[in-house]
Amino acid sequence: MNIVIFGLGALGTVFATLLKNSGHTVYAVTKEKYVKELENKNLKVTGIWGNHQAVLDGIYSSVDPLKNKDIDLIILSVKSYDTEEAVKNIKDIVSEKTFVLVSQNGYGNYEIVSGEIGKEHTLLARVIFGSKLLETGFAEVTVNADDVRIGDPSKTIPEDKIIKIACIIKNAGIPASYDPEVYKTLWDKILYNCALNPLGALLECSYGTLANNSETRKVMNSIIREIFAVAKAHNIQLNWEDPDEYIEHFYKNLVPPTADHYPSMYHDLKAGKKLEIDALNGSIVKLAREKSIKVPVNETITNLIKVREKLYR
Amino acid sequence: MNIVIFGLGALGTVFATLLKNSGHTVYAVTKEKYVKELENKNLKVTGIWGNHQAVLDGIYSSVDPLKNKDIDLIILSVKSYDTEEAVKNIKDIVSEKTFVLVSQNGYGNYEIVSGEIGKEHTLLARVIFGSKLLETGFAEVTVNADDVRIGDPSKTIPEDKIIKIACIIKNAGIPASYDPEVYKTLWDKILYNCALNPLGALLECSYGTLANNSETRKVMNSIIREIFAVAKAHNIQLNWEDPDEYIEHFYKNLVPPTADHYPSMYHDLKAGKKLEIDALNGSIVKLAREKSIKVPVNETITNLIKVREKLYR
Repeated sequence: MNIVIFGLGALGTVFATLLKNSGHTVYAVTKEKYVKELENKNLKVTGIWGNHQAVLDGIYSSVDPLKNKDIDLIILSVKSYDTEEAVKNIKDIVSEKTFVLVSQNGYGNYEIVSGEIGKEHTLLARVIFGSKLLETGFAEVTVNADDVRIGDPSKTIPEDKIIKIACIIKNAGIPASYDPEVYKTLWDKILYNCALNPLGALLECSYGTLANNSETRKVMNSIIREIFAVAKAHNIQLNWEDPDEYIEHFYKNLVPPTADHYPSMYHDLKAGKKLEIDALNGSIVKLAREKSIKVPVNETITNLIKVREKLYR
Repeated sequence: MNIVIFGLGALGTVFATLLKNSGHTVYAVTKEKYVKELENKNLKVTGIWGNHQAVLDGIYSSVDPLKNKDIDLIILSVKSYDTEEAVKNIKDIVSEKTFVLVSQNGYGNYEIVSGEIGKEHTLLARVIFGSKLLETGFAEVTVNADDVRIGDPSKTIPEDKIIKIACIIKNAGIPASYDPEVYKTLWDKILYNCALNPLGALLECSYGTLANNSETRKVMNSIIREIFAVAKAHNIQLNWEDPDEYIEHFYKNLVPPTADHYPSMYHDLKAGKKLEIDALNGSIVKLAREKSIKVPVNETITNLIKVREKLYR
């Protein structure tokens, strides 16, 4: 297969290295400065899935060199705030047979990509392994919570084609499976991240601390309830009958195993990086506005994070 | 006059020193550990009103030694979270002729005191000079925004008696005046503090930064709008027709002169001190609950501050 990894952050570096090592032709598109840093260098992966190195078939700062390469699969792994820009470029290398696998955090990426290149070309992945970049081109996989779940929210792509892509990723050493309900699965992650990430970043504390204080529980419960109201208004199906069912599951099953964890948003904030708040609580605010629903808690949290982000940058 | 200063924080130290120096008999009640620290020591005041020293007529950890002292005026200057405890003690030294001047921050103090000792004994002061404790018994006055405004929210106390107390304070060198609408004046300060203090503490930034970012403006505007709704439901008269009128005044006239200022809540948080959030946004939440009104922004901010406070302490 001819594969393009679009975005060489931690996630993209893991995909690129392992897919290349499993025998595919793998190109990457990343920022100009990273292209220079990576000239004549191996990509490397360490961590829970072992040590790997690979030399890609090309690392570019634009898609131009890839226009006649007959691309089968594009894995979109840029940060959410770069999706719109990325998809404009991706368009030029999507042919009849190309699939784009949207592998990012939060809400809105699938919608942007499928809107631009068509639902028949767009697959969605819910990625929930933890990885971080030790240096440009060198990623560490720290934890794996569940398979990469891959599916087609629009149900227009034949199942066998989706399963083939899930198998390619699985055979590269990244636990992955086909998920007919991937959209619900993604929303589970959105719920979890919207409740925990901004509060952990704002209060500089772990998930366990957030869950163990009645005051932050109240705030998280309000965030979750508002998301359920927004999902309902948009006819978005969730895995849960009502917020109470999810909230119970959240404190009982989801938080305890990650109690010591600090959100990536906390680390990104401290490092002066741009945050993905617009793909999390910010997207809830946007969706709410479309239906004239009020989501004051998500809105307040989004606004606080945005100013905090500005002050750190 | 026989005067008791109840609480020897920065504010109490200023009142005690200057009132003593203007010829009154002045006692103070403060925490046991401060009583010991202050044995055989002068109280001192420095700053914009000059340098002053005074030896009080007694500093005690309880009101017991004051029971037969024929007290005319008690100035209540403990932190808001200590009001309930303080008023239980104060009761024992209130006679027919005694006035208690409630001089604290936020909402609820006047209500607690007048509920316990009667409206005919309770006066309210809106204090808006800035002072800080350099050490126990030594306060610095840093800024004076306006007169100490003194009045009777219940309009049951004869004006001449209120004016007399305002004059006593003014003659001691603390700018003060009688304010027939002191309750509205206090609410002006509550509005200002609720909008700025918790956000400045949470985001660790100045009032100017809060006002210069559209996102924090939105949060502050929501806080203010919710307070207006609560005030309306409780029939509390404010100085402003509607929130828009106040919001315009707030950004145009109130914030600019204090743009570089960080809220006391920020300094108290950093110092691991207890915060007065329950007398500010927390009191709005309580008042809203009494009328089944929703104030999600004030509630979220209150909850965030409470956890932040716990993490710092």
